[in-house]
Amino acid sequence: MRRFSLFLDLYELTMAQVYFCYKRKTLATFDLFVRQLPQNRAYLVFCGLEDILEYIKTLRFTEEDLAYLRRQRIFSEEFLNYLKGFRFKGDIWAMQEGEVFFANEPVLRVTASAIEAQIVEGFLLNTVNLQSMLASKAVRVVLAAQDKAVYDFSLRRTHGQDAGIKAARSSYIAGFRGTSNVLAGKLYNIPIVGTMAHSYVMSFKKELESFFAYSSVFPERTILLVDTYDTEQGILNAIKVGLYLKEKGFRLLGIRLDSGELVRLSKFARKKLCEAGLDYVKIFASGNLDEFKIKWLLDEGAQIDSFGVGTNMGTSIDAPCLDVIYKISEVTDEKGGFLPTMKLSKAKLTYPGRKQVFRIQDKKKRFIKDILGLEEERIKGIPLLIKVVDKGRIIYKKPTLEQIRQRLSQNLLYFPEELKEIHSHYRYPVLISKGLERLRRGLIHQLERTQRNG
Amino acid sequence: MRRFSLFLDLYELTMAQVYFCYKRKTLATFDLFVRQLPQNRAYLVFCGLEDILEYIKTLRFTEEDLAYLRRQRIFSEEFLNYLKGFRFKGDIWAMQEGEVFFANEPVLRVTASAIEAQIVEGFLLNTVNLQSMLASKAVRVVLAAQDKAVYDFSLRRTHGQDAGIKAARSSYIAGFRGTSNVLAGKLYNIPIVGTMAHSYVMSFKKELESFFAYSSVFPERTILLVDTYDTEQGILNAIKVGLYLKEKGFRLLGIRLDSGELVRLSKFARKKLCEAGLDYVKIFASGNLDEFKIKWLLDEGAQIDSFGVGTNMGTSIDAPCLDVIYKISEVTDEKGGFLPTMKLSKAKLTYPGRKQVFRIQDKKKRFIKDILGLEEERIKGIPLLIKVVDKGRIIYKKPTLEQIRQRLSQNLLYFPEELKEIHSHYRYPVLISKGLERLRRGLIHQLERTQRNG
Repeated sequence: MRRFSLFLDLYELTMAQVYFCYKRKTLATFDLFVRQLPQNRAYLVFCGLEDILEYIKTLRFTEEDLAYLRRQRIFSEEFLNYLKGFRFKGDIWAMQEGEVFFANEPVLRVTASAIEAQIVEGFLLNTVNLQSMLASKAVRVVLAAQDKAVYDFSLRRTHGQDAGIKAARSSYIAGFRGTSNVLAGKLYNIPIVGTMAHSYVMSFKKELESFFAYSSVFPERTILLVDTYDTEQGILNAIKVGLYLKEKGFRLLGIRLDSGELVRLSKFARKKLCEAGLDYVKIFASGNLDEFKIKWLLDEGAQIDSFGVGTNMGTSIDAPCLDVIYKISEVTDEKGGFLPTMKLSKAKLTYPGRKQVFRIQDKKKRFIKDILGLEEERIKGIPLLIKVVDKGRIIYKKPTLEQIRQRLSQNLLYFPEELKEIHSHYRYPVLISKGLERLRRGLIHQLERTQRNG
Repeated sequence: MRRFSLFLDLYELTMAQVYFCYKRKTLATFDLFVRQLPQNRAYLVFCGLEDILEYIKTLRFTEEDLAYLRRQRIFSEEFLNYLKGFRFKGDIWAMQEGEVFFANEPVLRVTASAIEAQIVEGFLLNTVNLQSMLASKAVRVVLAAQDKAVYDFSLRRTHGQDAGIKAARSSYIAGFRGTSNVLAGKLYNIPIVGTMAHSYVMSFKKELESFFAYSSVFPERTILLVDTYDTEQGILNAIKVGLYLKEKGFRLLGIRLDSGELVRLSKFARKKLCEAGLDYVKIFASGNLDEFKIKWLLDEGAQIDSFGVGTNMGTSIDAPCLDVIYKISEVTDEKGGFLPTMKLSKAKLTYPGRKQVFRIQDKKKRFIKDILGLEEERIKGIPLLIKVVDKGRIIYKKPTLEQIRQRLSQNLLYFPEELKEIHSHYRYPVLISKGLERLRRGLIHQLERTQRNG
């Protein structure tokens, strides 16, 4: 793994040096959460913990890093020397990957020395933002496709390699059946899939010739792309190949439609395939698909068995970022006692104190509301934040990707149907506990007084 | 550098195996271009060549890669053995980074064996998409800010680490003055900048105390964040620090406004700073800025000297992908002669043949139109595609980042003003040469005939 110790904002290091001078023993708690849901999202899916734990475990500043920092003439030798021995030694509480979450709910809570808590900020935000954004988009696509299979085809237009790999992982967690991304397949053991490109068909003189060549090399896994020249003719050509394979004891796996009127063409294809006795041949569709288009296609009766979804999922195109923030919620005083704190600036108020998210169920185990409360409050519900790092040591047993995937699909079963609709305006209730509300109100008055006299 | 040989779509490898069986000696030419401009973009800026050349140079399949592929039970041993010795041995022509380009203009042209040309597809598309998208967004921000400085603050909400690093590089090429991203600073020698976070201010009992602590550690580079509690009070507190520093012979560098009514607050700050004799203190603004917001702020007379621009640039939020495609334009026949080819499917027609982009100037060197022509045509204009890889060998001398930055700013000077406006509807003329149009028309007829008889 490439080293990402310097993947941070410079201010994290300058603030750290000030803490180093003035508040070396100060401990602080930070919450990582999403301030508000983006458009078209009634809920979000948490992803990214695996990478965060790996980062926490391996976070070191190398001699090369330190030499670069020294050249900036910003930092003292004492501080650089401190960085040389730097290890993250704090505690982290987190939701588990595949957990459903809402605005204002901490998905990660870091309690550490102010220096350590500050230095990890950039990596944590970037990781949660990317992976949760992708999973939250992908799960919408999966739900829209109902029982049809969905595959990740997004590699070519994701934002770089990291995003490409994480699009495959996050969408698999969300319920995609596989990816075209070979590297992601290798790294995460995700099933890999592929058909053929237009250029392949065009590199032969005749479409039919290209089809036969492919099926002769892969008689058991041929999916023919039929829209390079004339789609209806392409479908008829594919049927010729299907019949030939059948004669030889093989089954043509599928055809792929990548453009044109998918409803009409898929119906045409299904009819012709059935007439030819090739009813087992699957119809794949691709080309600028997303949850809205897929829902529309199925509502219109398109005869499509599988969808390849690319750019719109891989860039979360309608909401290409989450409003993730990392806010301090308590800090120790001179005597080491934790004091809650919060931000007062208009429209950016935060919740103070060390918090927990409690998910409340009814008797049938259905989730009916969440309560954002203080850790020590006794609230009957499932506490979603669990301790994953204890004094710098990873104490969380990494689940398999399959387990994360199952956690999400299980979870979703118990949320209200209205929440999961594509055009949902349902607002799942996230209530503030009495204890937290009391703390917050008291603190607003106190802070306004203190600062005014400042 | 991490190995990205498997960062490709599976179909690139399955098609490659078919080529390996049937067309091992077939050569092909592919164009990489943007089919249409996204919303809010009247032009695009090419970036990504540096990474592409590094990828081409180092493209190898390791034993581990091959073992993974073997486990998929898709590929023959002969083909895996071929991959073991794989090297890219083709030619690549490309625009230079920092070049302005338009829809349908190839920014890269690959001529290689069909296998090699196909295998590099995914990485090339992904790289050009990300980096050109970012530079094209960032240059709009720079132009909107006129003579004010703009800095990249996007790390925390870019799509992963690769995107975060490339946002810093691409925006620096576009004219940003620096980045908060320390790793990008180290990798590309981009100036790094930073202020402080709200959490820092909040970790002290009083705002003023936090300001004095910071300025005592960094007396020559303090920028105070003034909106944590009450912004006007924060500005007055910053002035106290500024006066103290002045007394000690230092200059407060700036204050930062991150929320609230930036026009009013910046005017208030400028007035108070001047009254205090601190007119040299810069006013930084940040918080959901983009080219539209910056233009509006300046039009309203905001007293802002520098802008920190984050998420909206780093995700290219209004156009989070380019319509990049990679299309075959010629292929060799049995005798090794190149035959032009093209895609016929509706609304996705492509241009056949080996092409060049000619940029036409008037007598004052102003760019007035581009002509997309055939390589061998004699057209009076600047040919934008130059040969960068010859038979697998990199023959392009990598320019410095400063040189790329200058290329873009120089380039922009000679384009029409209307093109560069934020709300531009100007369509820069990209004409098709007579030779290319003739080739295309002839080929449509020919292909329709061939496929119909197929």
